[in-house]
Amino acid sequence: MILAKDDPLLPAMTPLGQHSLFDLHDCDAAKLSDRDVVREAMLEAVRQSGGTIVADIFHQFSPHGVSGVVVIAESHLTIHTWPERSFAAVDLFTCGTTLDHSKVESLVAAALGATRVDAKTVPRG
Amino acid sequence: MILAKDDPLLPAMTPLGQHSLFDLHDCDAAKLSDRDVVREAMLEAVRQSGGTIVADIFHQFSPHGVSGVVVIAESHLTIHTWPERSFAAVDLFTCGTTLDHSKVESLVAAALGATRVDAKTVPRG
Repeated sequence: MILAKDDPLLPAMTPLGQHSLFDLHDCDAAKLSDRDVVREAMLEAVRQSGGTIVADIFHQFSPHGVSGVVVIAESHLTIHTWPERSFAAVDLFTCGTTLDHSKVESLVAAALGATRVDAKTVPRG
Repeated sequence: MILAKDDPLLPAMTPLGQHSLFDLHDCDAAKLSDRDVVREAMLEAVRQSGGTIVADIFHQFSPHGVSGVVVIAESHLTIHTWPERSFAAVDLFTCGTTLDHSKVESLVAAALGATRVDAKTVPRG
């Protein structure tokens, strides 16, 4: 089925959101242990990708590991780190097309020293 | 391959986290428009499921729609709502097995009047 750009069916068929899951492997364990480093990596990735940061929460866990959330306008970016496994689980949810998922992925991966990323994107809605 | 319970390979093969994506369809539009209703639905689902709430951020968007994040101990629960489509996108990330994903899904869906949920769970790490 080919639809014209103004076909009334089109809005109903376009996903409302895009949700990417990034598994960051072989990261720098020292960076994953440091709340401030992880927070700055996440905020800077959003800033450089043109996102509007609404709020953020980052927590350091004992004995190690950081969890954090950046609320972006109608979107979010989260992270959970396991320094002992050099692993971090990141997810990026966006509405609209302003934020480039690949760019956010590359920036966070580079900042945390990841050498391998498994990424998948799931349309939502 | 069958491994003994104490096989040294086992920890390396067990996912570090579980990530569920819940697409809530045919929700009550008035509830999806109300920041306080959405926030209470999310917090109550975590409480009733035995999660430890660390912090939360919920925002009402103009002209309508709510985005929110609950940071749970080493986990998170987020939501983005589209009242005009009676739709909400929820995601739940957990480490460990304390939090029952199905229970959180049912509680949030019931509180927001969803009649249909598409759910998928992705192992992380």
